[in-house]
Amino acid sequence: MKQNYRMTLQYEGTKYNGWQKQGNTPNTIQAKLEAILQKLDGTEVEVRGSGRTDAGVHAMGQVASFALEHPLPSDVVMAYINQYLPRDIAVVALEEAEPRFHARLNAKGKTYRYRIHQGTIPDVFGRRYSWPLAEQLDVEAMGAAAAHLVGKQDFQSFCDLKNSKKSTVRRVDSIEIYRDGSDLVLDFTGEGFLYHMVRIMVGTLADVGAHRILPGQISGILAAKDRKQAGQLAPACGLMLMKVMY
Amino acid sequence: MKQNYRMTLQYEGTKYNGWQKQGNTPNTIQAKLEAILQKLDGTEVEVRGSGRTDAGVHAMGQVASFALEHPLPSDVVMAYINQYLPRDIAVVALEEAEPRFHARLNAKGKTYRYRIHQGTIPDVFGRRYSWPLAEQLDVEAMGAAAAHLVGKQDFQSFCDLKNSKKSTVRRVDSIEIYRDGSDLVLDFTGEGFLYHMVRIMVGTLADVGAHRILPGQISGILAAKDRKQAGQLAPACGLMLMKVMY
Repeated sequence: MKQNYRMTLQYEGTKYNGWQKQGNTPNTIQAKLEAILQKLDGTEVEVRGSGRTDAGVHAMGQVASFALEHPLPSDVVMAYINQYLPRDIAVVALEEAEPRFHARLNAKGKTYRYRIHQGTIPDVFGRRYSWPLAEQLDVEAMGAAAAHLVGKQDFQSFCDLKNSKKSTVRRVDSIEIYRDGSDLVLDFTGEGFLYHMVRIMVGTLADVGAHRILPGQISGILAAKDRKQAGQLAPACGLMLMKVMY
Repeated sequence: MKQNYRMTLQYEGTKYNGWQKQGNTPNTIQAKLEAILQKLDGTEVEVRGSGRTDAGVHAMGQVASFALEHPLPSDVVMAYINQYLPRDIAVVALEEAEPRFHARLNAKGKTYRYRIHQGTIPDVFGRRYSWPLAEQLDVEAMGAAAAHLVGKQDFQSFCDLKNSKKSTVRRVDSIEIYRDGSDLVLDFTGEGFLYHMVRIMVGTLADVGAHRILPGQISGILAAKDRKQAGQLAPACGLMLMKVMY
């Protein structure tokens, strides 16, 4: 009988075309993991992530599940995978899971962190993980705007739709904005996020912080259900999937 | 009249052949800075670092001095340099300095930090800045050994000599060893360090931590004045020049 496993992953997304395998592109996190597990198990193994991360997006706590035809102790599986992974991807935890555990279907919520580097001094050590914006943003205005984005509502204006038939209603539980040295950090927690949703929220909040959009306009942008009403798409490099809740 | 300047630099040394320009190799920090300042000033500008850092070594607070024939305000000079530097080097402070200020000759001390990543879980985000050593090191033994390295003494055994005529006596003021999550951090402060000296001290302390060398052997290793008596050379990537004291 197959043994199901659950693992927690960290990766620097800079060099990858995102989480999800695409045709024959080997340059995705999922494809790298599946190639290693296929070698270990001798059969095709499907690795299911809690969700996709886009090209260039990082993860501190991505969760994925998979099953092996030929079960091995979890510490052996973890050591095997880490031995063959490139140094910008690592399994930081791996355990046996119930047969029904599915990393995407069982996920109850996620926290994403977005980092904006403020000021004119380049950030040598954080440059791969932040969006450099020299202009000082108005954090109070951003907080007022963010309050309108919290709650269960239709985020159609805040996503780059791929399939217009699916529901774009999501519940955002909290948005926290705070300074960390020269950085401005934005933490988003919610049940799930649409394609580009966090990055469009960040881009729109940055526009608010620069006084190009007023906090009071957010409700109207949501009601319009029109992507063009929201602000810019913040770059992928500033985004990190921090945690998946089950 | 020439105007003298003092600047503080950060860099990730991964891709560079160290601080010091070597013949026509443009791939050093010093050569990058001199090329930019020559363009600004219209004449050859010599940039003097507080000291060399080896290939692959990083800096959080390297200090350098230079003089311009055609003086400009320090904020203008800083913005100009940062505009042309690659993203893995940055000027984080720049100010006018007394005509006699010389970053190397006036340096009174330096602090270097060395980071060892412990355990079998690879460190995705810190991998460029640490030495991965799975084996758990005995920190108490390392502290006992480090105590023998503090003080003014002949460090000939702890350097890879280039010129055997120069004195190898140096004063080490302190060595602090502490845990930071999964990392073991070693902070070295002293008046100055010989070629490879910090990395040989780290390699030797790691050998002590792995019980291949006993703390009581350090005095004998120092007295031998023989590089072969000391331990391994720790890799460059774990080393960071933190601070230069004037």
